[in-house]
Amino acid sequence: MRALRVGDDTRLVDVPVPDARGEALVRVTLSGICNTDLELARGYMGFRGTIGHELVGVVEDAGGGPIAKGERVVGEINAGCGACVRCDAGDSRHCATRTVLGIVGRDGAHADYLRLPARNLVRVPPSIRDEQAVFVEPLAAACGIVERAPIARGMRVAILGDGKLGLLCAIALAEDRPLLVGKHRDKLARAERRGIETALVDEARARGRVFDLVIEASGAASGFDLALDLLRPQGTLVLKSTFHGTTPIDAARVVVDEITIVGSRCGRFAPALERLGRVDLSDLISEVLSLDAGAAALARAAQPGVLKVLLHR
Amino acid sequence: MRALRVGDDTRLVDVPVPDARGEALVRVTLSGICNTDLELARGYMGFRGTIGHELVGVVEDAGGGPIAKGERVVGEINAGCGACVRCDAGDSRHCATRTVLGIVGRDGAHADYLRLPARNLVRVPPSIRDEQAVFVEPLAAACGIVERAPIARGMRVAILGDGKLGLLCAIALAEDRPLLVGKHRDKLARAERRGIETALVDEARARGRVFDLVIEASGAASGFDLALDLLRPQGTLVLKSTFHGTTPIDAARVVVDEITIVGSRCGRFAPALERLGRVDLSDLISEVLSLDAGAAALARAAQPGVLKVLLHR
Repeated sequence: MRALRVGDDTRLVDVPVPDARGEALVRVTLSGICNTDLELARGYMGFRGTIGHELVGVVEDAGGGPIAKGERVVGEINAGCGACVRCDAGDSRHCATRTVLGIVGRDGAHADYLRLPARNLVRVPPSIRDEQAVFVEPLAAACGIVERAPIARGMRVAILGDGKLGLLCAIALAEDRPLLVGKHRDKLARAERRGIETALVDEARARGRVFDLVIEASGAASGFDLALDLLRPQGTLVLKSTFHGTTPIDAARVVVDEITIVGSRCGRFAPALERLGRVDLSDLISEVLSLDAGAAALARAAQPGVLKVLLHR
Repeated sequence: MRALRVGDDTRLVDVPVPDARGEALVRVTLSGICNTDLELARGYMGFRGTIGHELVGVVEDAGGGPIAKGERVVGEINAGCGACVRCDAGDSRHCATRTVLGIVGRDGAHADYLRLPARNLVRVPPSIRDEQAVFVEPLAAACGIVERAPIARGMRVAILGDGKLGLLCAIALAEDRPLLVGKHRDKLARAERRGIETALVDEARARGRVFDLVIEASGAASGFDLALDLLRPQGTLVLKSTFHGTTPIDAARVVVDEITIVGSRCGRFAPALERLGRVDLSDLISEVLSLDAGAAALARAAQPGVLKVLLHR
């Protein structure tokens, strides 16, 4: 089968279909390129293997689970040990020995097939098309913000970044009436068409330090300073972007203004799937390319102005 | 009067006794050198003026307040506008237009006299000697940690830094049985004599990622990485140290492990004064020098192994 792998270099290779070894086997029909894929190709996490963690597919081998061969599924990406306190509590996201699809110790979704524990699979309702379902992982991550930083009625929320992640956060939190802050009027327009308020960076700064919660989803180191310029004293900054390398922060500002910084990674799929039934994300798709063009698709996804690039089989 | 000032250079100068202008006038009897003073001398906050914010003194002019001339006092360092929402709520620590004694827009305590709003003064009980009372500001800052990061019974707490701030945090939180982590057996011994558990950095790392709460009080950029090595996933890091410049942080670790970082600055004096009646801090005093030796005392305070340096009048 085909697999888009990173390590010494990034290229599509021919590898054997994985042996399910007690897990479920999924035939991938569509996968999405995430900025994390680009970071992994640059050496983030030291990962060597098949990348890709946004997918929709069809069960090929149920792996002992309740979802039968032929059913359409998405897959939670954290595969826990199944035996620790975290896993026992039904949340493998922080299992110390977890693997993570296409990120840590487990080959990912930019391939023809992948394996995952059967308990990680979630059925996709027939009403949700593949091109929607493939967004479940990043939308779940956006919805997961409120697990880490509850938003009370009346709180003023800003989201930094008009790329894929920022737009998905704005869509996920639309009911909290966030301000989406970015550098590109054309990207911001996608949020405005959904009734979400937007501002360019300078316009946002001009409002002063009035925000209770700022979500950094730009992936740029400058997002940190901008967040501190927008947050009221004792406000909360949510970090969503993962990237390779270090960010210089003015820790004294965090101390003096008693800011709270909250890291937020993965969310749960169930609420995100429910949300996908109600919003149309097709305008976030820049291109749908063949897996055969995988390496070129990664390069395309890294270009300015490009939003989601999908890989079909 | 004498005043130890920073700006173009750091030196003791002769200046007029301040006009109280409706505030209280305090004759300082003893002041303490904080690491923030050293940072201010290096340009932190761009402050130009008399430094010093740890003091005990005697009221010279009550400034319309209830504490009479001749009474012994300490002084809360944040002077709010008295009219905003924050000040109305009785907490000037985050008033947007506040001045801060010896730090922001207000001459400080390494002088013969200082002025502060009368409402900032707090009486010192006769049972608390000057050499104890002068610790009220930093001890309040240590006690203030729990305002920002409540500690539940059974939580595992580590404090990084065996200098003044770390030792005071360990003393303030002694009932929560913290582990004090440092690089100097002789400094750690001061905590051990109080029944506080201690560890060298490598010993702490060897325990693994088991701490629910880590308090960074070392003032070293390396403290951030060490904290992440000690914290469990979804643990909390409290930043206490303020210093000039930026710290490189691995933001991806904060996101992936969903760490919460909490800035913590000043605390309230009342609980700290109450605590000062029960603990003896004299072993944290390295030297008591005359204000005349102010500049040399700053240099002394910056030397390795030196704890609190006090300035008498």
